[in-house]
Amino acid sequence: MTDNQNIAKDTLKLKRVAIDTYRENVAYLHRDCAIYRAEGFQALSKIEISANGKRILAVLNVVDDHNIVTPDELGLSEQAFGQIDLESGKFARVAHAEPPGSMDAVRRKIAGGRLSQEDFDNISRDIAESRYSKMEMAAFLVASGQTGLDRDEILFLTRAMLNSGERLNWDEDLVADKHCIGGIPGNRTSMVVVPIVAAHGILIPKTSSRAITSPAGTSDTMEVLSKVKLSPDALHKIVHKVRGCIAWGGSAKLAPVDDTLISVERPLGIDSQGQLIASILSKKLAAGSTHLLIDIPVGPTAKVRHMREALQLRKLFEFVGDQMNIHLEVIITDGRQPVGRGIGPVLEARDVMQVLENNPDAPSDLRQKALRLAGRIIEFDPDVRGGHGFDIARDILDSGRALAKMNDIIETQGRQDCLCAHGSLTYDVKATNKGFVTGIDNLQIARIASIAGAPLDKGAGIDLFKKLGDPVEEGELLYRIHAEFNSDFQFSCELARTKNGYNIGAKEKIPKAYVD
Amino acid sequence: MTDNQNIAKDTLKLKRVAIDTYRENVAYLHRDCAIYRAEGFQALSKIEISANGKRILAVLNVVDDHNIVTPDELGLSEQAFGQIDLESGKFARVAHAEPPGSMDAVRRKIAGGRLSQEDFDNISRDIAESRYSKMEMAAFLVASGQTGLDRDEILFLTRAMLNSGERLNWDEDLVADKHCIGGIPGNRTSMVVVPIVAAHGILIPKTSSRAITSPAGTSDTMEVLSKVKLSPDALHKIVHKVRGCIAWGGSAKLAPVDDTLISVERPLGIDSQGQLIASILSKKLAAGSTHLLIDIPVGPTAKVRHMREALQLRKLFEFVGDQMNIHLEVIITDGRQPVGRGIGPVLEARDVMQVLENNPDAPSDLRQKALRLAGRIIEFDPDVRGGHGFDIARDILDSGRALAKMNDIIETQGRQDCLCAHGSLTYDVKATNKGFVTGIDNLQIARIASIAGAPLDKGAGIDLFKKLGDPVEEGELLYRIHAEFNSDFQFSCELARTKNGYNIGAKEKIPKAYVD
Repeated sequence: MTDNQNIAKDTLKLKRVAIDTYRENVAYLHRDCAIYRAEGFQALSKIEISANGKRILAVLNVVDDHNIVTPDELGLSEQAFGQIDLESGKFARVAHAEPPGSMDAVRRKIAGGRLSQEDFDNISRDIAESRYSKMEMAAFLVASGQTGLDRDEILFLTRAMLNSGERLNWDEDLVADKHCIGGIPGNRTSMVVVPIVAAHGILIPKTSSRAITSPAGTSDTMEVLSKVKLSPDALHKIVHKVRGCIAWGGSAKLAPVDDTLISVERPLGIDSQGQLIASILSKKLAAGSTHLLIDIPVGPTAKVRHMREALQLRKLFEFVGDQMNIHLEVIITDGRQPVGRGIGPVLEARDVMQVLENNPDAPSDLRQKALRLAGRIIEFDPDVRGGHGFDIARDILDSGRALAKMNDIIETQGRQDCLCAHGSLTYDVKATNKGFVTGIDNLQIARIASIAGAPLDKGAGIDLFKKLGDPVEEGELLYRIHAEFNSDFQFSCELARTKNGYNIGAKEKIPKAYVD
Repeated sequence: MTDNQNIAKDTLKLKRVAIDTYRENVAYLHRDCAIYRAEGFQALSKIEISANGKRILAVLNVVDDHNIVTPDELGLSEQAFGQIDLESGKFARVAHAEPPGSMDAVRRKIAGGRLSQEDFDNISRDIAESRYSKMEMAAFLVASGQTGLDRDEILFLTRAMLNSGERLNWDEDLVADKHCIGGIPGNRTSMVVVPIVAAHGILIPKTSSRAITSPAGTSDTMEVLSKVKLSPDALHKIVHKVRGCIAWGGSAKLAPVDDTLISVERPLGIDSQGQLIASILSKKLAAGSTHLLIDIPVGPTAKVRHMREALQLRKLFEFVGDQMNIHLEVIITDGRQPVGRGIGPVLEARDVMQVLENNPDAPSDLRQKALRLAGRIIEFDPDVRGGHGFDIARDILDSGRALAKMNDIIETQGRQDCLCAHGSLTYDVKATNKGFVTGIDNLQIARIASIAGAPLDKGAGIDLFKKLGDPVEEGELLYRIHAEFNSDFQFSCELARTKNGYNIGAKEKIPKAYVD
């Protein structure tokens, strides 16, 4: 309707304003601009800009400086200017933006209602078209987290997010993938699983994210060894050549609505089962996976803290996976403590390579977990008898074929040089009493490693010398902090001195694993 | 903690960037700025700026234009620059902003928990210090709207919001106020009630808001007759001189956290009982009221649609009011249709003056409702016998003393000239069949009046010629749309043609009032 009101009004000259406003379009109007005054716009209100047959939405900032925009100009931030795709000086119209129509459905959700596939499609489309402000997305996320989404709603949301973007097609019947729901530091199994599975011959184009709140994501760690930022074309060539990859997933436009929602969910620190499932499955379906193994670690400081919660999550994954026609299996794993020894990109890459090289010092928990996951994926192969996957995976690893495959992948993606030093500033955290390690706090260890500089400083992080159940003497080394910058170093040491994340106690206090 | 990290780093030169970003601080750093690169900031992340002994938070925009900022400068938007209160060229430090500590409480609320007074105090303080982003506020509002706040939590929130700002003190034992929870177009009773009550001698310093989503607020309508934007000093002088005022409440810093939350709640279109009560009571307590009358209109298109909901709301108002030590009464009124005839500032001001002038054409519903409310407020006077208030109010109105008082108030606030024309573009909406008016949709009528230009164009709006229960002939005039601008006019006519908001039906379909 604003269009009607606006057609009679004058137009403004476009100007590119060299300000990067990330995921938010910003428009700049001079305070003396005739249209600004006539339309009764308010700073920070959303306006709709029409030019070149396109319409985009932007947040309005009001300018008092002719050097930024003059009263007959419409300034656009880099992102907005790119979307309009016209030269400076061309003409554009502005009007009040309508609030997104699908907010009605969000308000129904807030009131405790149940939404339909059409509702989720509308919400997803409005988000994809940048019609939602961050606060509107927060309202949607909190509302669907709080009363919860029922399993049909999770399915609807998954489908809506999948349809919001592109979909890769690998032209094979079996395209495997794995995903861990997260929360366990050092859990770099993918970098062992992918070469084993690819060496078996199954296509496994693994794309993953960078760490946002954790000390390292698979992409951050792989980047120590090879390039991970690859164009969709390059990715296809690599995968068809070596049967697998370990790359950053951000280059392809897979379920972009998921990325947008995550950009609100993460800073808010909210997490809901429904969003988690829809997020993972829409991404994996968009990436062209036909077979998917989901890893749910359970432990007192893991994302999932009780077995009943893990089982509930598994049922939901299975329901949505079946409806979306993906072969999906869920494995519940031991999430009581970090996996491996290193936490942070360089230290984790070292652990991974030790496992692949069959180094006797390799952390056995990382090896065992990776073999178990790889075995389950190998059993997706119709020619592998149920129960034989683990042995096949072990043969591939022990024979050195996994290492050879990893080197193939690294070479094909582009080997990285000279990034491999540990942070040179080190601090040893020692036991203050004798006993056994009865607890390692995943969250506190992750926090200390993050503050030491991981993953931005590749060599920063933590190297664990004791794991659950290990006996320790007073004064014995528990872990070593590595950092590259002094201010980060000082602060992470301070944090470790306040609370080092370890419990040392009596032997009978060592917790049992919830799962084998 | 970020302070620690930052102390060793260099500082940046402050620069005022003439961009008005309204309620949001924005900082501009050049992409080549050394600190930007070292700190791993991301566009749109929040940063903390320290200078001049002050700390403020701002959203980061990244700039590629030396004319806006150079790599050794820190640009600040108008608002942010004003808060730091230093000249350009002085030095400031930047660091990552910590997420607000009270978001933990918000996450507990999302999970269905109950919050304490301390939690609400922390949330309110973090909001007052601009530590909350809009999405964090949306999370808080949706979470506390959805599982709801229990009555103690509403009390805690009221107290926290009250303590966030200043508090007026009138140095009298009886300071009366009234407030309608809203949603009924044309409901300008305050402009009749205030002169009656003030003429009786009770102090009634009425401050109100401008319309945000409705076609007129009391301030918008009063502004047709007099100035409403008055400094706190001027307000005090006026009130002590004439015993009352009808002014805009935005100049004083009363419960500023409430304003901030409303700036998120309104565009989201969400509304919760708890927020409504805390918002109204914190504002009125901050304005120094000792006695308060709350008007809750009930009707099928009012904010409150069922009597049980109105009663529930009344109990909650009474509970919080008693705990906060304000004498509070709630009156439930007929909200089936607009009050009076005019909708929009000029048309509503006409109705008000007709009532005050005892004009025989004055809308009787506005007169009756105003007398009823004024009567209840007059009974706050300990010298007035219960049940006598209405008669006293009627005497004051009929005798012309209310009109004289209104003229005093107008003169003292500063009479407004020449704003009093109706919109010159008119369109008559007529009945398409014979029968009785069996329904008037408050929401649709408000929407048509808003789109015609009210309250921005003072003369725009709707003039009603038929009310509930009136008999109508086919083709008879139901209401007239007034507008000042052609595009607004066309669009509001179009909306009225699609759905005019009136139901014409059989006599027995005329709905009964829920309340007298």
